[in-house]
Amino acid sequence: MVSRRVVIVGGSDAGISAALRAKQVDPGASVEVVVADAYPNYSICGIPFFLSGEVQHSASLAHRTAREIERAGVHLRLETLATEIDPTAGRLRVEGPGGTERLPYDTLVLGTGATPRRPDGDGFEHPAVYPLHGMGTAFRALEGLRANPQRVIVVGSGYIGLEMADALRVRGVDDVTLVGSSPAPLPTVDPELGALVREELERGGVRVIDGTRVRAIEDAGGGRARVLGGEGFAGEADLVVLSTGVVPETSLGTACGLKTGEGGALRVDRRMGTKLAGVLAAGDCVETWHRILERPVWLPLGTTAHKQGRVAGENAAGGAAAFAGTLGTQIVKVFELAIGRTGLDESEARLAGHDAATIAFSGRDHKAYYPGATETHVRVVGDRGTGRLLGAQLVGHWRSGVAKRLDVFAAALHLGLAVTEVLDLDLSYTPPLGSPWDVVQQAAEAWDLRWRRQTDSSG
Amino acid sequence: MVSRRVVIVGGSDAGISAALRAKQVDPGASVEVVVADAYPNYSICGIPFFLSGEVQHSASLAHRTAREIERAGVHLRLETLATEIDPTAGRLRVEGPGGTERLPYDTLVLGTGATPRRPDGDGFEHPAVYPLHGMGTAFRALEGLRANPQRVIVVGSGYIGLEMADALRVRGVDDVTLVGSSPAPLPTVDPELGALVREELERGGVRVIDGTRVRAIEDAGGGRARVLGGEGFAGEADLVVLSTGVVPETSLGTACGLKTGEGGALRVDRRMGTKLAGVLAAGDCVETWHRILERPVWLPLGTTAHKQGRVAGENAAGGAAAFAGTLGTQIVKVFELAIGRTGLDESEARLAGHDAATIAFSGRDHKAYYPGATETHVRVVGDRGTGRLLGAQLVGHWRSGVAKRLDVFAAALHLGLAVTEVLDLDLSYTPPLGSPWDVVQQAAEAWDLRWRRQTDSSG
Repeated sequence: MVSRRVVIVGGSDAGISAALRAKQVDPGASVEVVVADAYPNYSICGIPFFLSGEVQHSASLAHRTAREIERAGVHLRLETLATEIDPTAGRLRVEGPGGTERLPYDTLVLGTGATPRRPDGDGFEHPAVYPLHGMGTAFRALEGLRANPQRVIVVGSGYIGLEMADALRVRGVDDVTLVGSSPAPLPTVDPELGALVREELERGGVRVIDGTRVRAIEDAGGGRARVLGGEGFAGEADLVVLSTGVVPETSLGTACGLKTGEGGALRVDRRMGTKLAGVLAAGDCVETWHRILERPVWLPLGTTAHKQGRVAGENAAGGAAAFAGTLGTQIVKVFELAIGRTGLDESEARLAGHDAATIAFSGRDHKAYYPGATETHVRVVGDRGTGRLLGAQLVGHWRSGVAKRLDVFAAALHLGLAVTEVLDLDLSYTPPLGSPWDVVQQAAEAWDLRWRRQTDSSG
Repeated sequence: MVSRRVVIVGGSDAGISAALRAKQVDPGASVEVVVADAYPNYSICGIPFFLSGEVQHSASLAHRTAREIERAGVHLRLETLATEIDPTAGRLRVEGPGGTERLPYDTLVLGTGATPRRPDGDGFEHPAVYPLHGMGTAFRALEGLRANPQRVIVVGSGYIGLEMADALRVRGVDDVTLVGSSPAPLPTVDPELGALVREELERGGVRVIDGTRVRAIEDAGGGRARVLGGEGFAGEADLVVLSTGVVPETSLGTACGLKTGEGGALRVDRRMGTKLAGVLAAGDCVETWHRILERPVWLPLGTTAHKQGRVAGENAAGGAAAFAGTLGTQIVKVFELAIGRTGLDESEARLAGHDAATIAFSGRDHKAYYPGATETHVRVVGDRGTGRLLGAQLVGHWRSGVAKRLDVFAAALHLGLAVTEVLDLDLSYTPPLGSPWDVVQQAAEAWDLRWRRQTDSSG
């Protein structure tokens, strides 16, 4: 019997996860991964920490080394571009160090990821402007930073923008300005929490310009760039970091007839299958099933790419796995704060037809009598009619358990709990680490007292 | 209409929770709490931190002050003993500063708690011996510690024993010995993790004597005590802390005919009702419904007392709440480590008829490339036949997210997830705080690869 041939395009989270899972499920399969650069399985989420200097060697960013991946029986074709799929013949054309080849496959997994979104406007090709995404862009930015720029402007106040502003200060850049188009930094959380993020950025020495869409970059002479934005903003910088989001990279798939949907990402089913038999896709290049909305969205996240890659790999090897869906759980550390969300915010929930309401609650991360207690700010969204938990957002000191408290909400959301059922969870307690009712439960209780329709309560 | 009269016995977690909830549910009710001492709603879990000196004022230990409780409309009768229930007349006899009274009730809630278990053997009344439980014992122990004892022996290596050994070192006692009867400290976790706890205790300067049951205390002259145990153990100390567990305090209830069950605790249903109409009970004095075992156990924990008290209070005020059940979730901090468990260990699961198996997994709390990563040790118990998650134990640095990772397992257990479904949870990730697959998911995957019967997998 001829062994199954699995070919995977993309050496980042989705592609490598797919490869390793395919090999687990069918150890006899031939599994090869076509990687455009020389950096398979690098943690691109780690790039800000590499640029800050906290991570000394770029090789440390690899989730797994190339050798570890190959030891698992996966063949890597580095610095190789996938250029065309021939679905009829079941072949993938690639251009690599050895020239053009046509790789036959039984199943093909596309994990082509995303590329930086270039803002509308002129001048973004200025040599002082550094878009950030993969390792190539990271190395280029590191070169720029080694010239010790005095003034740096970060464009975009989403997760990467915040991490980069922090990273630049850690690196020692004195004059760091963060320019974002939303009313407060981190538009994925409610502006009340964004205001806390702004305070923390300012405490860390970052100048924060909100509500300003960057429209053009001009040359300011001497290698410097002038950043021009709405509201009359104009700022000069030695170096400009662009972190204005990403767009899905789908051209390989669409060229052979695959359709795109939400956010321009490839359409897939929950088994990560496309309309073409034998062709699966996963990660930032595809739509993502949302577990609460019960419809596809585009929400590119590393955690999701890993999960979808695992499902695609299992199915590529003959399995029948399905992606359980995303809740959009995200967290970011900015100086001493961690800020995260999971599930829906109130406006998303209302758009989806829920009678949604939010409670804002603040409480200590652990008993106040034990030294070092800090404030955790929690926002809980639930449906007033059904009582169902729909989402949560948290902000607090990054070492005070914010991330894992968010995960408790994520687990509760995964299972469709009511807000009041959060009070039923048997969570851990010791005075240095929590309260008899953890702050997540205190927030849930506050929601319940404020918003739940007065009906007979039964546990 | 005459307002409902709710009388509650016991001013600790269960009693005060019941009182506050009753008042929330029926603001017109008369709610009074009979408190044996002058310390309503004190966090007895905080006593070790009070004795260590980390908590300066005993009043800081109060979850809520007496004034806060009374402001919520609850009447407190301090330093008042409940001496007899007359269920026929619906009256409670109490002896307080104003003499004997008979308080009429429509509903009575018993939250009489637990008292220290006195070990079998002679001499435990020696003046150098300090059993620990409520505030009275804490004040007495503080007196003893103010005499600056040179050598202290802690008897009992459960949660309180470990915290006291830590507290004594923090306080500055040079010579601290912990004597426990189990093969390793903290017998509620597997001995492999107990060994890590022992190392940490020794690193903290505590001498650890395992496998030694203390059988007697002798007078050693000069106010000192000699502790005698099995295996020929004999140790002299200026002060001996007894932390050998507790027994339920049920005499008020049994005197009027209530039955006891598991661990000698009062029998209750999931609405916290007893066999007597109008009499409820909650907290350490009652049996606890176990959510996985689906039968009552006795598992006295502050978190459970709060939850049961809330249910009892709601029902005392005319509601119909039910206790969702315990998972026995517990955590303790010992020097730099946190150690916790939730659900069943393997032997408990086997006794309950499960085809239980354990995986031991260790992984970093966050990406190794970001500074400060530490090892988290995870043990996962699941059923090989059904794949169901049955329990988890974790050990790691106390600031590295152990407690809240335990809570993710607790949430998964609450809902009866399969071990593999833990991989489906959309948990948060940022390099300083986690991994794309959190260590709890890595452990679940390891369990799955090792133990799950090979059947068709479907998500």
